[in-house]
Amino acid sequence: MMRPVPVILCGGSGTRLWPVSTPARPKQFAALVSDVAMLTATAARVADQKHFAQPIVVAGTDHGEQAAMLTRAAGAAPAPMLLEPAGRNTAPAVVAAALEAQARDADAVIVVLPADHLIGDVEAFHRVLARAVAAARAGRIVTLGIRPDRPETGYGYILAGGPEPGIDGVCKLVRFVEKPDEARAASYLADGRYFWNAGIFVAEAATVVAEAERLAPAVVAACRRALAGAERRADDVLVLNADSLAASPAVSFDVAVMEGTDRGAVVPADIGWSDVGSWQAVYEARRTSGDAAGNVAPPEALLIDSRNCLVAGGTGQVALIGVENLAVIRSEDGLLICDLDRSQDVKAVSAALE
Amino acid sequence: MMRPVPVILCGGSGTRLWPVSTPARPKQFAALVSDVAMLTATAARVADQKHFAQPIVVAGTDHGEQAAMLTRAAGAAPAPMLLEPAGRNTAPAVVAAALEAQARDADAVIVVLPADHLIGDVEAFHRVLARAVAAARAGRIVTLGIRPDRPETGYGYILAGGPEPGIDGVCKLVRFVEKPDEARAASYLADGRYFWNAGIFVAEAATVVAEAERLAPAVVAACRRALAGAERRADDVLVLNADSLAASPAVSFDVAVMEGTDRGAVVPADIGWSDVGSWQAVYEARRTSGDAAGNVAPPEALLIDSRNCLVAGGTGQVALIGVENLAVIRSEDGLLICDLDRSQDVKAVSAALE
Repeated sequence: MMRPVPVILCGGSGTRLWPVSTPARPKQFAALVSDVAMLTATAARVADQKHFAQPIVVAGTDHGEQAAMLTRAAGAAPAPMLLEPAGRNTAPAVVAAALEAQARDADAVIVVLPADHLIGDVEAFHRVLARAVAAARAGRIVTLGIRPDRPETGYGYILAGGPEPGIDGVCKLVRFVEKPDEARAASYLADGRYFWNAGIFVAEAATVVAEAERLAPAVVAACRRALAGAERRADDVLVLNADSLAASPAVSFDVAVMEGTDRGAVVPADIGWSDVGSWQAVYEARRTSGDAAGNVAPPEALLIDSRNCLVAGGTGQVALIGVENLAVIRSEDGLLICDLDRSQDVKAVSAALE
Repeated sequence: MMRPVPVILCGGSGTRLWPVSTPARPKQFAALVSDVAMLTATAARVADQKHFAQPIVVAGTDHGEQAAMLTRAAGAAPAPMLLEPAGRNTAPAVVAAALEAQARDADAVIVVLPADHLIGDVEAFHRVLARAVAAARAGRIVTLGIRPDRPETGYGYILAGGPEPGIDGVCKLVRFVEKPDEARAASYLADGRYFWNAGIFVAEAATVVAEAERLAPAVVAACRRALAGAERRADDVLVLNADSLAASPAVSFDVAVMEGTDRGAVVPADIGWSDVGSWQAVYEARRTSGDAAGNVAPPEALLIDSRNCLVAGGTGQVALIGVENLAVIRSEDGLLICDLDRSQDVKAVSAALE
């Protein structure tokens, strides 16, 4: 049996993690929750060549070299690497990767992974992937469903149904649900059948292509042309044809395929997942490494009567006196001082600076 | 009548204004409350050569060039400049300057000015100085008494008595009072006869020397030897003899002379004075230039739902979200985030970094 092929999506530009994440240096290329870039951590989780094939990395043309370097830092060769002259959301990225994987191996199973998520429990992640791959071999397009632990309004949800017959740990996918309001999020949390949509998909490349042909033919046609007209660079790097790719609708894989397919399935996943989508999320992800007062900060920071603060980025001495619940974030692009409860408002800063 | 000679004291190293003020760059050399260094602003207040002679600038040897440059930036030539190889508090600095002024003009009146204070109402300051100079000509050593507007525990106080006969606007000096506790400070404020000691003195140089000879002869002897053995550099710069100066007690002019003299007098002064001794004081001094939400920040700062914050120093973009009453201070030496009410604790940072 062929090993599944990781497809690592490096698109997207985090606007809520300024000043570390900027259009020129999106968060997947930054070391937000550990000492390595998030892309490197993502690639490292699927770098064991006993269990995974070499990854297909999809990135913007401008970030190709950076993405290749950070993938190699995980001990994985990005092969091939698909570079998009302009981002068209996730549907073309997934479909192009599926077409490429299928061309190399008609039976390939792909594991689509956003490059900028945190997965705290890698062993559980691997167990979940094994179930998902089994379901993929049975013709399903599997999405990982993260069990919610709070009434989050920032994510889309998945309503899972009963168990898929004959595939252990896999549920039917009833439907995708838009980001809810607070009351609805609370009811989803209480219900128990709702999961967060992490954007992690597992399927045979052929299944993805076939369902995309049926549900989003314009995406598939554009991707075929973009691959056929791609410029081949050294080291297995393909620059997708810009004009062809631009003809694709800019649409997410969720909307283009998952919401319409009757081949969807869900694997409930308790894997310590976070999309690390805000400084609050970064703080939560790193909190266990904090001090007794709940501060997460570099060891040289001077913290006087300060509690529950996140100090990150930049270099040089930093001192906090008498403050709490703050994000204090430095980079060469600027300085952010933000009440952690207001982390979602950082996108207003990014917007103002554009 | 000779114009009075400003004596600008550039010693001292502010430890409560880190990271802008450091041992290598004390606050008098920083632009804390305006676009120019505090020394330049101090020199500019007494730079009008119709009313003042060229200043005598006393500084540490390490800071001689910086002090000269910043004095000249005010349009005043530091002539002469007295450089101390090591600081010995204010008594030797004032006495050495008095000896030098007396040597150049036996009738000289000196106006001793700390380089790192803010005086908001310069016209009132000049009116007060005119009264003080008149009292100095009558043999008094005059100290400016700042009328307190709050029960400050961080300053020494002066108890003023009745009017000096025949000198308008000048009071008898009853005694100096140590920094009080809160209850005592409140009683001083209510009393009306207590003033803050700003460390601004006006006297004939000969009077200063004579009273110092009587009350602190070791200081005068050391200063005479330090001047006699001084190394003369170009441009009227004297480096006091290190060994001779080291023989002087390290003592303040208040303690060495003012507390013992019977020639003291006080001029009550409402001149918008601040010693700018903390970030809270910097904020208060600059508050009128702030925005409607009470923020004092550079125009490019992004302030979202933030109130009563001071943003100063450094370069590059800065953004505040959902915070209040904070000092956010950047310099090449570091970053401070401090509750403004905790400004006094910044000295703990300086101490920790030493």
